[in-house]
Amino acid sequence: MAEVDTLRTALESFMAEVVVPGEERYRHEAAELHGRSTPTVMAEMQGEAKRRGLWNLCLSDDEWGRGLTNAEYAPLAEITGRSTPAAEAINCAGPDSVNMETLLRVGTPAQKEQWLRPLADGECKSCFAMTEPAVASSDARNIATRIERTADGYVVTGRKWWTSGAVNDRCRFAIVMGVTNPAAPAAHRHSMLVVPMDAPGLRVVRQLSVYGYRTGGHAELAFEGVEVPADSLLGEEGEGFAVAQLRLGPARIQHCMRLIGMAERALELLCDRARTRTAFGSVVADQGVIRDWIAESRIAITQARMLVMHAAEKVDRDGSRAARDEIAMIKVSVPRMACEVIDRAIQVHGGAGVSDDTPLGAMYASARTLRIADGPDEVHKMVLARSELGRQGRPVRTVAGSAEPAARPAPIEGVAS
Amino acid sequence: MAEVDTLRTALESFMAEVVVPGEERYRHEAAELHGRSTPTVMAEMQGEAKRRGLWNLCLSDDEWGRGLTNAEYAPLAEITGRSTPAAEAINCAGPDSVNMETLLRVGTPAQKEQWLRPLADGECKSCFAMTEPAVASSDARNIATRIERTADGYVVTGRKWWTSGAVNDRCRFAIVMGVTNPAAPAAHRHSMLVVPMDAPGLRVVRQLSVYGYRTGGHAELAFEGVEVPADSLLGEEGEGFAVAQLRLGPARIQHCMRLIGMAERALELLCDRARTRTAFGSVVADQGVIRDWIAESRIAITQARMLVMHAAEKVDRDGSRAARDEIAMIKVSVPRMACEVIDRAIQVHGGAGVSDDTPLGAMYASARTLRIADGPDEVHKMVLARSELGRQGRPVRTVAGSAEPAARPAPIEGVAS
Amino acid sequence: MAEVDTLRTALESFMAEVVVPGEERYRHEAAELHGRSTPTVMAEMQGEAKRRGLWNLCLSDDEWGRGLTNAEYAPLAEITGRSTPAAEAINCAGPDSVNMETLLRVGTPAQKEQWLRPLADGECKSCFAMTEPAVASSDARNIATRIERTADGYVVTGRKWWTSGAVNDRCRFAIVMGVTNPAAPAAHRHSMLVVPMDAPGLRVVRQLSVYGYRTGGHAELAFEGVEVPADSLLGEEGEGFAVAQLRLGPARIQHCMRLIGMAERALELLCDRARTRTAFGSVVADQGVIRDWIAESRIAITQARMLVMHAAEKVDRDGSRAARDEIAMIKVSVPRMACEVIDRAIQVHGGAGVSDDTPLGAMYASARTLRIADGPDEVHKMVLARSELGRQGRPVRTVAGSAEPAARPAPIEGVAS
Amino acid sequence: MAEVDTLRTALESFMAEVVVPGEERYRHEAAELHGRSTPTVMAEMQGEAKRRGLWNLCLSDDEWGRGLTNAEYAPLAEITGRSTPAAEAINCAGPDSVNMETLLRVGTPAQKEQWLRPLADGECKSCFAMTEPAVASSDARNIATRIERTADGYVVTGRKWWTSGAVNDRCRFAIVMGVTNPAAPAAHRHSMLVVPMDAPGLRVVRQLSVYGYRTGGHAELAFEGVEVPADSLLGEEGEGFAVAQLRLGPARIQHCMRLIGMAERALELLCDRARTRTAFGSVVADQGVIRDWIAESRIAITQARMLVMHAAEKVDRDGSRAARDEIAMIKVSVPRMACEVIDRAIQVHGGAGVSDDTPLGAMYASARTLRIADGPDEVHKMVLARSELGRQGRPVRTVAGSAEPAARPAPIEGVAS
Repeated sequence: MAEVDTLRTALESFMAEVVVPGEERYRHEAAELHGRSTPTVMAEMQGEAKRRGLWNLCLSDDEWGRGLTNAEYAPLAEITGRSTPAAEAINCAGPDSVNMETLLRVGTPAQKEQWLRPLADGECKSCFAMTEPAVASSDARNIATRIERTADGYVVTGRKWWTSGAVNDRCRFAIVMGVTNPAAPAAHRHSMLVVPMDAPGLRVVRQLSVYGYRTGGHAELAFEGVEVPADSLLGEEGEGFAVAQLRLGPARIQHCMRLIGMAERALELLCDRARTRTAFGSVVADQGVIRDWIAESRIAITQARMLVMHAAEKVDRDGSRAARDEIAMIKVSVPRMACEVIDRAIQVHGGAGVSDDTPLGAMYASARTLRIADGPDEVHKMVLARSELGRQGRPVRTVAGSAEPAARPAPIEGVAS
Repeated sequence: MAEVDTLRTALESFMAEVVVPGEERYRHEAAELHGRSTPTVMAEMQGEAKRRGLWNLCLSDDEWGRGLTNAEYAPLAEITGRSTPAAEAINCAGPDSVNMETLLRVGTPAQKEQWLRPLADGECKSCFAMTEPAVASSDARNIATRIERTADGYVVTGRKWWTSGAVNDRCRFAIVMGVTNPAAPAAHRHSMLVVPMDAPGLRVVRQLSVYGYRTGGHAELAFEGVEVPADSLLGEEGEGFAVAQLRLGPARIQHCMRLIGMAERALELLCDRARTRTAFGSVVADQGVIRDWIAESRIAITQARMLVMHAAEKVDRDGSRAARDEIAMIKVSVPRMACEVIDRAIQVHGGAGVSDDTPLGAMYASARTLRIADGPDEVHKMVLARSELGRQGRPVRTVAGSAEPAARPAPIEGVAS
Repeated sequence: MAEVDTLRTALESFMAEVVVPGEERYRHEAAELHGRSTPTVMAEMQGEAKRRGLWNLCLSDDEWGRGLTNAEYAPLAEITGRSTPAAEAINCAGPDSVNMETLLRVGTPAQKEQWLRPLADGECKSCFAMTEPAVASSDARNIATRIERTADGYVVTGRKWWTSGAVNDRCRFAIVMGVTNPAAPAAHRHSMLVVPMDAPGLRVVRQLSVYGYRTGGHAELAFEGVEVPADSLLGEEGEGFAVAQLRLGPARIQHCMRLIGMAERALELLCDRARTRTAFGSVVADQGVIRDWIAESRIAITQARMLVMHAAEKVDRDGSRAARDEIAMIKVSVPRMACEVIDRAIQVHGGAGVSDDTPLGAMYASARTLRIADGPDEVHKMVLARSELGRQGRPVRTVAGSAEPAARPAPIEGVAS
Repeated sequence: MAEVDTLRTALESFMAEVVVPGEERYRHEAAELHGRSTPTVMAEMQGEAKRRGLWNLCLSDDEWGRGLTNAEYAPLAEITGRSTPAAEAINCAGPDSVNMETLLRVGTPAQKEQWLRPLADGECKSCFAMTEPAVASSDARNIATRIERTADGYVVTGRKWWTSGAVNDRCRFAIVMGVTNPAAPAAHRHSMLVVPMDAPGLRVVRQLSVYGYRTGGHAELAFEGVEVPADSLLGEEGEGFAVAQLRLGPARIQHCMRLIGMAERALELLCDRARTRTAFGSVVADQGVIRDWIAESRIAITQARMLVMHAAEKVDRDGSRAARDEIAMIKVSVPRMACEVIDRAIQVHGGAGVSDDTPLGAMYASARTLRIADGPDEVHKMVLARSELGRQGRPVRTVAGSAEPAARPAPIEGVAS
């Protein structure tokens, strides 16, 4: 814990001295690159992060990272949420952070050397290909990409989209979810594979924008008979959902804590703007409605932080599966809270709020998207309700109408960045 | 902490074996008594609580109570919130619990013997007279009741209302707030006194109902030249707001945790009802909108609990004054949350929800009132906003338009029971 | 239309000169009577209404009433919504107004003479027995009270509740819905009967309160083999739902317009209070948040009025069946709007808002109940959604999972007063 | 009215046969042009609109347009709101439509010939320069651009932004608001001028995006000593706010009705998507929460339409000034409603909703911006509250703390397109 306090102080200095001063340059470069490459300022930030020992803080392994638990890393993740380039500057941006964690937990030594090493060194980037355009991605069992076993390895055929970062020229590989065992029960049909971005048959069909923004580098990908060697399999065949489950806790806690940092930043921007503008003879910050928004935002952010910390502690203590309700709660409530706080900040900024003169519009787009990515809010609320109805010890019919509990929806990652 | 776990288990058994079985009888007796006396079943519950060592758990002193901190007592308070008679059954209902805590902290040994002793033994009840009908009670500085020094003591003249429990025939004394030092600065004008209910000149003008309920025993009181001896003063003259400040932490944390217990109970009732009713060919619990409400309620309750625990820990660590923002946050968010959860439960129950066939209507009235008592939400949000705007190190004009920070509104207690 | 303007002016004078001055007396008498009888001041108001030609304005027949259409009567209904006794003062309170309209439309000449005549003359009152305690009243097809044909008439056996006004000693008869044709399709199983309140076997089991209020006179009724003559049938056997359909338009438009009047009154009370209270150095009416509530209330009330007028015009032009979507829209949105406006007024009034010092608490209870009565909001929203999905010309599965459209839920009246 | 029905039918055919088929092409061209020019398909649409007699329907003059009242044009405006290119296809897109109306009402014959003629013929486009970057645009009295009288005309010096359409190469002139009479009372300080886009000293500083979209062609403009002849003045000197007042009714009614059309389109897209996707074993359109959204959307849209029609009728009957409360109501409630409906449609579409695969993201950006343009919601609500408090015949302090009523905020147009 003393170590965490030290890291927090160091990270705050890094933010103040390196990230925030580079923010403007990052934003302008990024706007030009449209997600197709990484701004050059990033290499400088990353070099400085390494020098300061602020590298891979998100990794739970103390050889590869700092061995922090989710609850220990969470406040650091919040700090990185305050500025767009920060998480990547310490090599902890999604989906790389969660891809690294996945490789750490289920990767073979050879896989770690081949895929985790360069990622952990910041030499390359990666993506995660799960969501598909043709099916309702809210139900992970709909995933239809085929992964067929051959003599030498696997052949992947299918269509993915919302694969964040896939158009970035530094993206070296994708982790792909597909069906390997079509005859198995729903929860044991899928597997995860590592596929290099330059594999023949893997094609970027097009880039996707989010409310007009292209910086996320989201892509639609076609896998047209892509062949990979047998050792590309992550974990066991048919256990793709189990691997996905492992990702869940870290992925959502990191997203949610970054959103809390983002909401804090938005509230600061709101307060700053309100203090410096005058309308109808009084400072905007003195208007009752604006003060009401500030108070509501403070309450909402603090509540959200407490809930995420509670979830992080539960994941650390009991594992992602046991903490699935808490993870669902933060998945639903935190992005919604962030959207509301950011939207109030936009309103106080007037035209500047929706333009590129502030980061608020892009923050909103990012937070709003997280109500869809990883499964829409509605799916997670259905899960919570079933759990609540079940907790009280009585048989409950499932959503789909059968008395047997439906398989839990696996996470749909991909849009998030 | 081990002791707290033991107490929790013991309290849960007490709830299951004593309180819940007596609930129906309590409710019927209470409906007849209209707040004018205590149901006879209460004496039985209290006797059993004493025998089980579950008495005065709320008192922070380990001679008079169990010496629990706010954070330790909070989960126990939540448990008592699940059933109307529970808090009183362990002698921890408001305003007695907070009156006892006040006497513990600022009472002289003689005051403790005279007033705290019988209250702590459950021999009598008390009330708290703060709110006044003629002024906006949201601003405690408006309190106008005069307390004049005489040769032998004090004379109280004024009008109070929302004095909860004052019409109960077991109520022995009131703690009264009034102006002793009219020429002093606003924060040092008021004092608190103990006034026996049978003092000449103290008159119950009328009883007040909440929505249509009269069980709270709220009264309008006239103090018409009521004389009390000099040793009736609680703390120092002119320090009534400082004494009020001491009450704040415990009062609000207890209220809020009981509301969380109440919301949990409402959610259980909602789920139970939804499981046992059929409409349009399906069980109500299988309808998507109902499941959405269940999930939203689960998230809202859990968030609220985390926030109250956070506030309790801060009060324990740094004191009520330092934790005033956290206390304001729970004051605003928890009653509102409880109203929403209870209202959903009412809707699922249909006509039964608004009638006396369920405790839901009365729960709603009680939770709704707490958005007004102790100062309306809007006052606490203004305080939070000022604090937030001030936190960022720049001068901020106050609500009232002056550059000097307004005195913090003191708590307005009285409606709560 | 000129006639309507004349009536409006006359009604406003009647309100100002007779109803509002009598309000206080009405409220006090009503609080004593607990719904078991009518305050004596009502006879005086009614006498004056008759003298002024403001009697039975709600009846669409110009012999029995003034022959106003729904759209013509709606603004007059709004005026009566501003004060609790007003609708009854002009003999247009529910359920009498709708019972009269039902008798007008489907009653035989003999039925009109026997039942409509005394009601239209204000000699007695009536009630409507539809909702049942044992089944989800949201689905009218659940209604289980049996009405069996005998040689001489019918025998009614069942249990009803939320029969508003049934405990009033002036209530002479009930209109009762029950199953006459159990083997028929769902929409043709039920019939409506007139049953005198003094019929042997008809018993008031108990009175029901609404948030502690007993003024509505709601009852649970037992029909234990109640015999009535054959000419008690209203309309055709098996056509109870069709008769219910006729009631729908007038019933809901009247309820909704009265709620709009009630909301206007609440907003006036809010403004009056805000203008006369000072807190933290400024008049409450000058605080931004209060002004925000005032503006939101003005918008919400005006929108609601426009929607109800639109529905009324459609009912007049095309009939209740064709206007069912519009009727569902007002049923959902108007009581909710009224609850919100009234709740804001309560908050501005502080403790006075929840007590009997203002009519606000009772207004809230009444508006809140209308989100349950006549079928909960959720049922009407499901109907609207089905209609919307169907409008676009594609087959849609019904809520219950069958491809055949479910019978429309019939209205559940009874709680409303 | 018969004419309006004929126009409605003709416009619906035009939408189905010309606009909707060209939508995809329009969207692709527009995405390439980034607001800097008009897609070529527009000329084709406009030619067809002229041939069908569907040109300038928005103009209230029957020589230049069709002489429709606001209430008559409103339903046609709604139809054009359903598809992005539609309003421009009939030459009724903002700000051209309102600029034309302004020239019609206050322009001299020469001004009409010079500026209105080419605009009305579709030969060019125009913009409206009001909002300024350096001041809170919520208070129009803050506008600081100087317009100085010289021997020959006027010199304009200042900075404007959110001048929609200014970067379009077809934009020929701007209508500019600035201070001509700095010593006059606040409401008589400003004037409006026509300034050609190619006037020396007028410079497009940069283009502004809305969220990530650049299609609106919004610009920041610098007026650096721009000289225009004396006959560039619109109306009287010092009467800029009076001219702005004239614009108000038509501008807001047209915006709001287009938003209602947009919301209807979003609801259709929502329903279409929900019907064609399956998740967890059932069609999305069968899920209760989705049906709830559909019903809420239907209610909200219908209410909004009724309110706008009510405002339009009042503007036609009593003028924009008399209808200012109604105009404020629609300004606040309609864009918010549209945002909510569109946001639900986005959620149902998942990733497709935020991407350019649907028009929903751009619709959201557009509707959200209208909560800021023309003055933020909060300003209009303050106006409504003052009016409401004043209506009841008592003196009310104004927002700014003075007893004298503040000048009404003039409209801030500019962001809207």
